[in-house]
Amino acid sequence: MKILVVCSGGLDSVTLAYKVAQSDTVDALLSFNYGQRHTVELEFAARCANALNVAHEVVDISAFGRMLSGSALTDDIAVPEGHYAEDSMRVTIVPNRNAIMLAMAFGLAAARHCDAVAVAVHGGDHFIYPDCRPGFIDSFQKMQNHALEGVQTVQLLAPFVTVEKAEIVRQGSSLHVPFADTWSCYQGGQMHCGRCGTCVERREAFSLASVDDPTIYADTDYWREAVRQHKGEGV
Amino acid sequence: MKILVVCSGGLDSVTLAYKVAQSDTVDALLSFNYGQRHTVELEFAARCANALNVAHEVVDISAFGRMLSGSALTDDIAVPEGHYAEDSMRVTIVPNRNAIMLAMAFGLAAARHCDAVAVAVHGGDHFIYPDCRPGFIDSFQKMQNHALEGVQTVQLLAPFVTVEKAEIVRQGSSLHVPFADTWSCYQGGQMHCGRCGTCVERREAFSLASVDDPTIYADTDYWREAVRQHKGEGV
Repeated sequence: MKILVVCSGGLDSVTLAYKVAQSDTVDALLSFNYGQRHTVELEFAARCANALNVAHEVVDISAFGRMLSGSALTDDIAVPEGHYAEDSMRVTIVPNRNAIMLAMAFGLAAARHCDAVAVAVHGGDHFIYPDCRPGFIDSFQKMQNHALEGVQTVQLLAPFVTVEKAEIVRQGSSLHVPFADTWSCYQGGQMHCGRCGTCVERREAFSLASVDDPTIYADTDYWREAVRQHKGEGV
Repeated sequence: MKILVVCSGGLDSVTLAYKVAQSDTVDALLSFNYGQRHTVELEFAARCANALNVAHEVVDISAFGRMLSGSALTDDIAVPEGHYAEDSMRVTIVPNRNAIMLAMAFGLAAARHCDAVAVAVHGGDHFIYPDCRPGFIDSFQKMQNHALEGVQTVQLLAPFVTVEKAEIVRQGSSLHVPFADTWSCYQGGQMHCGRCGTCVERREAFSLASVDDPTIYADTDYWREAVRQHKGEGV
């Protein structure tokens, strides 16, 4: 199959790109600039495209992103610290982000005659983001079957949708994914902050997977405290 | 209800805006610049917003539109002439256009705390565009219910989805829609060409509705021939 891979430059979607490249043909990596403060991640998507020797398409919807106020990912609200599953992380919801990005991905996939779109939504996102759950993925495929009826059949592949992030790290390790060339931090600084939800989640996933984490964090120890507080017990 | 109305500046969506304004609160009109050659229509959407005294939001996805090659609406392929329902009009399909526009509309509706998004897809579009059919509209609503679960309930209103264009003209006439301030032509010239599919469809709809058509067409008579050829008989 010829597959368009939605790739943010994060650990999950870079691992997905390597996974797809192993079994199928990656047509291109597709990234979105929606005005996120961590646009640095787009450079990591470009590195992944370069490593896999495939095209890297970037769709700039940053002007539209500015119209969607209220999310800490795109405006001046402080990015919350702590465990990814905490209520405080709900402010990082960009309304309808995955539906928007996937609809654009399907348009491009149809134009490029791809057989499928692959996306790296995963089980750890379910708590907070409704557009990362299996029900969303299934209903999105059904919607697209109607929208592109008679034009092009495009499958939606979400192989991590019921997989925890630690398992993605394990698979990535087997695929020799260069984890140091992936970006997770929502702060968008020079290095991973180690304190925001995605940094804590990332560090915890390496620990759970028993895989060495090559990431350089500004705060190397905070994640343990955040995980402990989240669980309400020692780890 | 507070409703975000997707409005291209065409006859159908301007009529929809007037219809919504009569029964509910129009939060804003939302238009898209996807690189269509008939961007002149956006000026007509602005006129409608002005007449209804509501905000007019324009999302510029023209750079993305350029990535979707193959459609006569966005690139250098000639716009076909003849009846709207002819096979030749299939080249005017922009892959996944309605799914993309509606997904963005739902994101904005959630951010603006709207109760609904209204869109003017209508029965006459079913022949050619799969993303104008009732099955698409129903599946899109279901997808959005998943995508925005726990965030915001947003309804998708498509009151013309099983209505023919002539009936839209009749309703618009009752609502005193200023039809001269609406734009249909795909050519995007100084006046309606009278020969492209949407011009033929527009002129025919006024005729079928027995409503005076205030539109100035460059070619005033071609529509009769196109309709006759399409039906294979005299009209």
